Amino acid sequence: MLMFLDDYSEGAHPAVLEALVAHNGGQELGYGEDRYSRLAAEPIAAQVGRDCEVHLLVGGTQSNLTCLGAFLRSHEGVVAAQTAHINVHETGAIEATGHRIVQVPTPTGKLDPGLVDAALAQHADEHSVRPAGIFLAQATEEGGVYSADELGAICAHAHAHGLWVYVDGARLAPALAVQGARLDLIAACGVDAFFAGGTKNGALCGEAVVLVNPELRRDFRYHMKQRGALLAKGRLLGIQFARLFDGDDLWYRLGAHANAAAARLARGLSECGVPPRAAEANQVFVELPGDAATRLAAAVRFHLWSRGGHGTVIRLVCSWATDDATVDQLIDEVRVALAASDATEVPPGAVRGAAGIEG
Amino acid sequence: MLMFLDDYSEGAHPAVLEALVAHNGGQELGYGEDRYSRLAAEPIAAQVGRDCEVHLLVGGTQSNLTCLGAFLRSHEGVVAAQTAHINVHETGAIEATGHRIVQVPTPTGKLDPGLVDAALAQHADEHSVRPAGIFLAQATEEGGVYSADELGAICAHAHAHGLWVYVDGARLAPALAVQGARLDLIAACGVDAFFAGGTKNGALCGEAVVLVNPELRRDFRYHMKQRGALLAKGRLLGIQFARLFDGDDLWYRLGAHANAAAARLARGLSECGVPPRAAEANQVFVELPGDAATRLAAAVRFHLWSRGGHGTVIRLVCSWATDDATVDQLIDEVRVALAASDATEVPPGAVRGAAGIEG
Amino acid sequence: MLMFLDDYSEGAHPAVLEALVAHNGGQELGYGEDRYSRLAAEPIAAQVGRDCEVHLLVGGTQSNLTCLGAFLRSHEGVVAAQTAHINVHETGAIEATGHRIVQVPTPTGKLDPGLVDAALAQHADEHSVRPAGIFLAQATEEGGVYSADELGAICAHAHAHGLWVYVDGARLAPALAVQGARLDLIAACGVDAFFAGGTKNGALCGEAVVLVNPELRRDFRYHMKQRGALLAKGRLLGIQFARLFDGDDLWYRLGAHANAAAARLARGLSECGVPPRAAEANQVFVELPGDAATRLAAAVRFHLWSRGGHGTVIRLVCSWATDDATVDQLIDEVRVALAASDATEVPPGAVRGAAGIEG
Amino acid sequence: MLMFLDDYSEGAHPAVLEALVAHNGGQELGYGEDRYSRLAAEPIAAQVGRDCEVHLLVGGTQSNLTCLGAFLRSHEGVVAAQTAHINVHETGAIEATGHRIVQVPTPTGKLDPGLVDAALAQHADEHSVRPAGIFLAQATEEGGVYSADELGAICAHAHAHGLWVYVDGARLAPALAVQGARLDLIAACGVDAFFAGGTKNGALCGEAVVLVNPELRRDFRYHMKQRGALLAKGRLLGIQFARLFDGDDLWYRLGAHANAAAARLARGLSECGVPPRAAEANQVFVELPGDAATRLAAAVRFHLWSRGGHGTVIRLVCSWATDDATVDQLIDEVRVALAASDATEVPPGAVRGAAGIEG
Repeated sequence: MLMFLDDYSEGAHPAVLEALVAHNGGQELGYGEDRYSRLAAEPIAAQVGRDCEVHLLVGGTQSNLTCLGAFLRSHEGVVAAQTAHINVHETGAIEATGHRIVQVPTPTGKLDPGLVDAALAQHADEHSVRPAGIFLAQATEEGGVYSADELGAICAHAHAHGLWVYVDGARLAPALAVQGARLDLIAACGVDAFFAGGTKNGALCGEAVVLVNPELRRDFRYHMKQRGALLAKGRLLGIQFARLFDGDDLWYRLGAHANAAAARLARGLSECGVPPRAAEANQVFVELPGDAATRLAAAVRFHLWSRGGHGTVIRLVCSWATDDATVDQLIDEVRVALAASDATEVPPGAVRGAAGIEG
Repeated sequence: MLMFLDDYSEGAHPAVLEALVAHNGGQELGYGEDRYSRLAAEPIAAQVGRDCEVHLLVGGTQSNLTCLGAFLRSHEGVVAAQTAHINVHETGAIEATGHRIVQVPTPTGKLDPGLVDAALAQHADEHSVRPAGIFLAQATEEGGVYSADELGAICAHAHAHGLWVYVDGARLAPALAVQGARLDLIAACGVDAFFAGGTKNGALCGEAVVLVNPELRRDFRYHMKQRGALLAKGRLLGIQFARLFDGDDLWYRLGAHANAAAARLARGLSECGVPPRAAEANQVFVELPGDAATRLAAAVRFHLWSRGGHGTVIRLVCSWATDDATVDQLIDEVRVALAASDATEVPPGAVRGAAGIEG
Repeated sequence: MLMFLDDYSEGAHPAVLEALVAHNGGQELGYGEDRYSRLAAEPIAAQVGRDCEVHLLVGGTQSNLTCLGAFLRSHEGVVAAQTAHINVHETGAIEATGHRIVQVPTPTGKLDPGLVDAALAQHADEHSVRPAGIFLAQATEEGGVYSADELGAICAHAHAHGLWVYVDGARLAPALAVQGARLDLIAACGVDAFFAGGTKNGALCGEAVVLVNPELRRDFRYHMKQRGALLAKGRLLGIQFARLFDGDDLWYRLGAHANAAAARLARGLSECGVPPRAAEANQVFVELPGDAATRLAAAVRFHLWSRGGHGTVIRLVCSWATDDATVDQLIDEVRVALAASDATEVPPGAVRGAAGIEG
Repeated sequence: MLMFLDDYSEGAHPAVLEALVAHNGGQELGYGEDRYSRLAAEPIAAQVGRDCEVHLLVGGTQSNLTCLGAFLRSHEGVVAAQTAHINVHETGAIEATGHRIVQVPTPTGKLDPGLVDAALAQHADEHSVRPAGIFLAQATEEGGVYSADELGAICAHAHAHGLWVYVDGARLAPALAVQGARLDLIAACGVDAFFAGGTKNGALCGEAVVLVNPELRRDFRYHMKQRGALLAKGRLLGIQFARLFDGDDLWYRLGAHANAAAARLARGLSECGVPPRAAEANQVFVELPGDAATRLAAAVRFHLWSRGGHGTVIRLVCSWATDDATVDQLIDEVRVALAASDATEVPPGAVRGAAGIEG
C-alpha cells in the first residue's frame, strides 16, 4: 500500500543517522549544554543573519506550547487562523497553558492585515483577552506558502499594533524552497520568533526554535524545563541539527526534494483531469469526484480533508524520502480510481482522520 | 440621560436591602455555613424539585469559571455558541482554567442538536480536546429564550453522547417568566447544572449555582475556595437569596417586570416603524437605519451590537427597576432620532462597547 | 455560646450599612466604573501618598490569586512563609493560576532578608522556578506585625534582588493601628502592591488592592475580569470603601478597636496564668494546658492551632465588633476551664479546624 | 577530566543504536501507532504481569507532568517528599498544570505511611487541596531504594485512604537490580502507575509509562498530545524500548552494571576513609571533609549536594557506561584531594549545581 499520509512516516535521513552513530561516544553535558547543540545553533544563527537565540526542542506541539506559553502573559491571547494547527490538532495545548486562541476565519488558511484588524476590533477592552501576538504556519496547514511580501505585511502590521509574530515552521524547509530562499528571509520579513522543523524534514525528531526579538528570549530555558521540553540528552537534537545545517545545506535540499515530488504529483493529477486545489510546497490537496476517494483508499493511505458537493478533498503529502516511482504509482492509482468512480452525490461536511488505514 | 445599557446598573431591590439591614446583627459562621445560606438553599432546592446542591457565588463570570473548571478534566472542552458570554466577554476566563471552548457558529445565538453534532464530528480523536459538556445561556446573549422543547432536546442529545449541560442563568428569571415557568422546568428539561442569577435580578451581587447531576457535585466547595469564590461573609449572599426566594416569589416577579417593560418598549419601537429583531425576554435588539443610532446616543446610553448595510443594531435592556415612564421617554427619543436621521450607508462589521457614555 | 473564631463573623459596621442604604438608588455604570468606586479610590490613593492605582475586589483569596496571577510570568514563583495563608488555607489557588509558591520555613511566621536569601540560593537556575516576588501578610497569620524597619528591610532586600513585595492586608487596619500609622507607612516601606482589607474590618465584603509599582499595574482590569473579580455592581464595593475611608477615619478606628479588645483579652489571660504567645494586633494565640482547650470549647468557639507537650495552642480573634463585656465573659470561661482541667499529656501535631462548633 | 555528574551524559547503548539503524527504513504510522511501539509495549506489559497500558514518552519531567496532570482534578494535589524531583528540579512543571505539590519533610528522602498521614491530617477540608495521590521516585533522589515491603506499605496505606501511587522510575532499572527483581515487583507492590526509565539507562531518550490502575488510563493519549508528549515519529521510542526489553534483558542488565560500578566506587571511598552516606543503587553520596570537594573538582565533574560542619556532601553517579578503570581513577583523585585538603570549617547550607564544569 502506498503511503502519502504525512511527512513524518519515515525514519531519519541516512546522513542524519550516520551523524548520530558517529557521535554516539563520549560524555556530554546534559540539557542542551553539549557541544553538538552549540554546533547546531551556530550555523542556524549565522543563516538567520541577525542576533538571535537558538533552542532545540523535540516536537512541533511542544515548541508551540512552550513558545506561546512563554511569550504570553496570563490575560493575553494569540491571533491565529481558524484552520491553524494549534486550533485544530493540538488538543487544546495552548489553552492548557491558560491562553485563548483568537480564531480568525480565513478564505484560504492565510492571515493578512485586514483579517488581523477584524480580530483586534473585537478585542478592544478588558472584557476580552488582549491579543499580544500572531501565530501562523509557513507553509500553512492548507498547503499555501506566504510570499515574502505577504509575511512582511503581516509583520509590519503586527508591530505597528504592538504584536509579535510567531511562525510554526514544521514545514519551513519546503516553504523556503518554494521561494528559493534561506533562513535569513524569514527574519528579514520581521518575524519575531519561529521554528525550523526537523521532524518533517529528515530528523528523527526536533525543531530548532529561533528567538529573534530580544523581549521574547527572556528566561526561555526556564520555560523549556517547565514544559518538559529541555531534553536531558540534548546531544540527540544537537547532532541532528548540526548535520542538517552543515555546509552541504542538507536541510534546504530535503525541502526542495519534497517540493519536487509534490510538483510531479500535481502535474500527474492535472493530466488525470483533477488539477490540485493547492500544491505550493510539499502538500497536495485535490478534490476527487464521486466515490473516487473511497476507491483510492483501497490502495493508498492519505488524509481526508473535507467533503461536499460532487467530491471529496484529500491531502497527499510528499517528503524528503518520496521517490519518483512512488509518485507515478500513486498517479496510476488515482487514474484507476477515477475511471471506476460513480458520480455519487457527496454529503457536505468537514471530515477528520485518515483513509486507507488498516487496523 | 436615559440608561438602557444593562440590567446591573441599579442597586438592590428595596426588599433585598431591607433584609440585609434586618439581619445585619449577630455572628454567623463564615464561608457559606451561616444560617441564611441554608435558608436560601432550601426554597431553591424545593423549587427545583429534585435532589440537588445549592451554592451561592458572587458573580456570573466567577460562577462560569468555577463550574466549568470543576466539571472539566484537563483534556476536556466545553461546547458553546460562538456568541456565548464565556466566548466573547469573559477575558479568556475559561481558557485561564486550562480549557478550550469548542465554538459553534449559530444562526441565532442558540445551540441545537445538529449544531452540537457538527462540533462533535470535528472532535473525534486525541488530536482534539474531548467535548465533555455544553454551555448555554438562558436567556441567550442574543436575546432569545430556549423553549422547554428546545432545551429538552439539547439535554437529551447531550446525555446520549455522554455530555452534560450547564446553563448560565444570569437572566434566568426573565427567561422563565417568558414561559410562565419556575425553577422546576429547567431541571425537568434535563439540565445538569445551572445558576439562577441574582445580580441582574434584584440583588447587589450573587448567583445561586444549582448542581443537579450528582457527578458534578463532587468537592464543589474545594473548587469555590480555589477560585476565590467562597465568600468569607457568606451571609451577604444568603440573606439576599433567602429574600429573593421567599414565599412571595420576589425573584420570579422581578423577572416578569423586566419582561413587561421590554414588551412595552418593543411595541413602541414597532409603532415607530422599527420592529425589534428580538425581544423575547428583557433584552431588546433593534436595527436603527442610517445614523439614527448615533443620534439616539446623545440622549440614551445603550450597547452597540453590530453594524452593516443600512443600519446599526443596538441593544436596549430593561430590568426589574425599569418603569413605564422611562420606557415611554426612550420611545420618544427613538422617534426623534429616526426623524432626524440621514439614510447614511453604514460600513459593515461587528462593533463592541457602549454608546452614549460620557467620560 | 461565645464566638472568637475569626473577624468575619459579623455583618457590616452600621455606618457602612447606612451608606449602602443611602446610595442604593439611581443607575451607575458597572464593573467598577461607578462614581462610588472613584469616591473610594481617591481618599485611599491620597492616604497612600504616592502615585498608585486602586482597585476594589471582593475577597482575600480572590485578591491574592488575581494579583499574583497578574504579576507572575509562567516560569516565576512567589516566596512566602510556610505558614502563609496562600500556602495553607487557599486550596492551591495560586498553583491553580500555574505558579509555585516557594515555601520558606520561619521561626515565627515572619520573613526576613536572611530567610529570603536562603530561598533564592536554592533557586539559582532554570531547573527551578525564578522567584519574582515576595508574599507576606500584615498582620501575619501567626499574629505578628512587621515593624516599619522589618518591612522596609525586606522591601529593600527584595528590590536589590529584582523582586517585588506584595502584602496581604486582610488585617492591615489592626496592623497599622499597632504602629499608630496610616496607609502611607506601607508604601513608604517600599511595598510594591498590597490590599487594605474590608471584609475583616467592617465591610460586608471587599478588599482595596493598591498597586504602587507601575510595572505591576499593567492591564490589571483584564486580570480582574479573567479571574471573575470584576464585580458587575461595583457600587457595592465603592460605597463601602468610600465610607470606610471617609473623613472620619472609620477604617482606622475599627482596627484600633479590635486591637484594644485583644489587648484586654491578653491582660485577662495573663492574670489567669496563661500569658498569650502572641497578641500584637487583634489575634491572640495562647497555649492552654492539659485538656483546658477541650473544656473551653463547651462554651466558646475558636480555632485550634497546634497541639503538643503539655497543652494546646488556640487562636482567639477580636474584631471591630467585640465589646468589653464579651471579652470579660471569655476570660471567665478560660478561668473555669483552667480550674477544671487535668494535666493530660497532649499528643503532638498540628491541628486544623475549629472547636466548639455545633452541627 | 572525569565525569560523574549524572547518568545521562552518554549517548545510546550500542545495541540500542544498532536497532535504530536497522529499523530506520520504511514508513510507519505516526504518534505511537507504529509497529515498534507495539513491539515495545508487549514485553513491558508481559513483564509487569498484569493488565496495563504502556505509553512511550520522551523524558522524565514530561512524563511526570503528563501523568500527574492527567490523574489530578483541578482541586487535587499530590503528596511528595520535600526532596522529590518534581519539587526541586522541574521548574514548577506540576504547578504549571495547576496543581499543588503537598510537600512532606522526610529524614532520608523516603516517604512512609506515617509521613503520609501527617500530610493528610493537614488537608482535612476545602480550605486545602485534596490530596489525591502520592509521588515517589524509585530509586529516590537521595540515593535510596524502597524495599518491596516499604513500597507495599505505602501503596496499601494510600489505597486505604483513596489515594493512588505514582512512581518516577527514571532510575527504576538500578533500583530493581538492587532487589534482584523485575517489573512485576513494582506492580505487585500495588503501584498504580509508573515509568520505566530509558534516558538514564541506555536509550537516547524515552520513558515507558505504565498505567496499571484502570481509572488512571482514561484518555491518556489526549493528555500526551495536549502536553506535547505524543511524539510524531513514535518509532524513535518504539525501536529503543523494543530493544531494551528484548529477550536478552538489556534494560535490566544495564541497571545492574551501573550498580556494580557504584558499589566498586563505594568500596574505594570507604578504603579512603570516607564511607559513602548512601549508595544503594547507582548514585553515591559522600561527605568530603574540609576543602577536599573543591580540590576534587579540579579533576572530576560532579554535583554538590549540601555543605555544613566539617565537609561537603557530593553526588557521584555511575551509569551503564561506567567502566572499572574510570572508577579507579576517580578513587585515586579522591585520595589525592583528601590528602591535600585543609580541615577548613565549611559554612552550612544547601548548595545547588555542579562543580568541575569548565565554561
